Amino acid sequence: MTEDLFEPRFSAFAGRIRDSFAKQGLMETFGAHLASVACGRVVIEMGFSQKATQQHGFQHGGAIAAVLDSACGYAGLSVMAADSAVLTVEFKINFLAPADGVRFRFEGEVIKPGRTIVPADGRAYAIAADGKEKLIATMSCTLMAVQGRGLEG
Amino acid sequence: MTEDLFEPRFSAFAGRIRDSFAKQGLMETFGAHLASVACGRVVIEMGFSQKATQQHGFQHGGAIAAVLDSACGYAGLSVMAADSAVLTVEFKINFLAPADGVRFRFEGEVIKPGRTIVPADGRAYAIAADGKEKLIATMSCTLMAVQGRGLEG
Amino acid sequence: MTEDLFEPRFSAFAGRIRDSFAKQGLMETFGAHLASVACGRVVIEMGFSQKATQQHGFQHGGAIAAVLDSACGYAGLSVMAADSAVLTVEFKINFLAPADGVRFRFEGEVIKPGRTIVPADGRAYAIAADGKEKLIATMSCTLMAVQGRGLEG
Amino acid sequence: MTEDLFEPRFSAFAGRIRDSFAKQGLMETFGAHLASVACGRVVIEMGFSQKATQQHGFQHGGAIAAVLDSACGYAGLSVMAADSAVLTVEFKINFLAPADGVRFRFEGEVIKPGRTIVPADGRAYAIAADGKEKLIATMSCTLMAVQGRGLEG
Repeated sequence: MTEDLFEPRFSAFAGRIRDSFAKQGLMETFGAHLASVACGRVVIEMGFSQKATQQHGFQHGGAIAAVLDSACGYAGLSVMAADSAVLTVEFKINFLAPADGVRFRFEGEVIKPGRTIVPADGRAYAIAADGKEKLIATMSCTLMAVQGRGLEG
Repeated sequence: MTEDLFEPRFSAFAGRIRDSFAKQGLMETFGAHLASVACGRVVIEMGFSQKATQQHGFQHGGAIAAVLDSACGYAGLSVMAADSAVLTVEFKINFLAPADGVRFRFEGEVIKPGRTIVPADGRAYAIAADGKEKLIATMSCTLMAVQGRGLEG
Repeated sequence: MTEDLFEPRFSAFAGRIRDSFAKQGLMETFGAHLASVACGRVVIEMGFSQKATQQHGFQHGGAIAAVLDSACGYAGLSVMAADSAVLTVEFKINFLAPADGVRFRFEGEVIKPGRTIVPADGRAYAIAADGKEKLIATMSCTLMAVQGRGLEG
Repeated sequence: MTEDLFEPRFSAFAGRIRDSFAKQGLMETFGAHLASVACGRVVIEMGFSQKATQQHGFQHGGAIAAVLDSACGYAGLSVMAADSAVLTVEFKINFLAPADGVRFRFEGEVIKPGRTIVPADGRAYAIAADGKEKLIATMSCTLMAVQGRGLEG
């Protein structure tokens, strides 16, 4: 259980995020699941997935980016109002080490809960068989709250 | 057939890229394939994939990023020497429109074929059923040539 | 004279940009000036400035970034409506070569003239004494149109 | 006095950074000074500078980026060996609020002290007349150690 970092604008934010996450085919493909949801902070975890490998058998950097983008995006959605949907305007990811592990953790955290623009940071960790963790990527992300495009929820 | 943008340092660069691409589980998962390989420019295409969706049924921005990262990464590898492997140091992606289409094209192009650091740009397009194309994302990427880590090829 | 890339939303966009540019103390400090203004594309030029050096006597990468940010920002403003001001949400810059030259040119170009979010790309060139040009930096930028904050113009 | 985050590879790293900083014309132009230097973490401060303004009288985002780039770059240099110079490969900056203050603080911190590639993060704060601080920008940066280019020091 993580504590909220901000005062929620929408009390049912966590349920909305869980519903939305369940609709992401990509997360199902990778076997990723929501590990925790707080207002301003979302954590996703996944085991090593054969469907997400690159040429050397590690997890593809792009797959790491995709799940970290989801963690940041849902962290962004967690601070938005009930009538808003979240769009990723852009993100940047730095890769620090190969995604070599048996499990992976993706942490997305809102930097500033703006009304329209919500910047968020992400960090991805690889977890070895012995439980040792390693920071493998950092993300800097710009999210945007949009209304009236039929994308809420 | 695309013309080479630079003088190859490794004459068999295209074969190496095709071999490496074939080993990427993630590209197979998405049903992506190499459309063209030139020295300094690589194009990947894929059809709409149910395995790569986000919550509204479009392709996940992270999946777009992952394939575009591969296009940029292989564009980078195409200008590198035979004893080098390619690492993605970082990339940044701007999303311009939802990834709504029946097919998608990912173009990666080297900006400067440096010996160690290779910057590359990428562009992703969604193609509608009527053949109309739309630019949906732009990428700015830093690749690095590494030797002696057992990652060549 | 550069041709407009987009249909202007505000016919007097060029005059507004020239007025705003004249108020930027930083551009005056660097001796930078507007070389051309079109709808969607703005070019700034400056000579080598002793006030903008780094430790090896070249122009500071951060100074290059600052002027390129202005070029992109004004390219963004050029496509916005009369009641809008422009904010830079974020930018990313890749440095390709030291900023070694007698003059420098900064080109900012809008990728998509959105109503709220305007992505733009920038390129900076160093020009040697013999007139030879070299690409030294590329920028990827997110601009935003804001209203009613008293920042118009 | 800040404590070192990493074991220095070069014992005289702080002196080298102070010497290098003193040669940056841009920092002198802005009236910026080194507030603290530790292995892996460098802080720069500056008062409001009329030479660094944008069109609304605040500090120019590009000026904020330039000083934050210096903080990150010197944080990177602080973990490098004696025979290395530091190059900024790229940086990305998100702007969270206008640079409105009487003083500004720029913190650069190394994420991972790699031998060649050194990723670093930066944060810029505006300080109001009453001493209140506000986070105005975050930076994600890639630095590189280079040898034998005559740029050491």
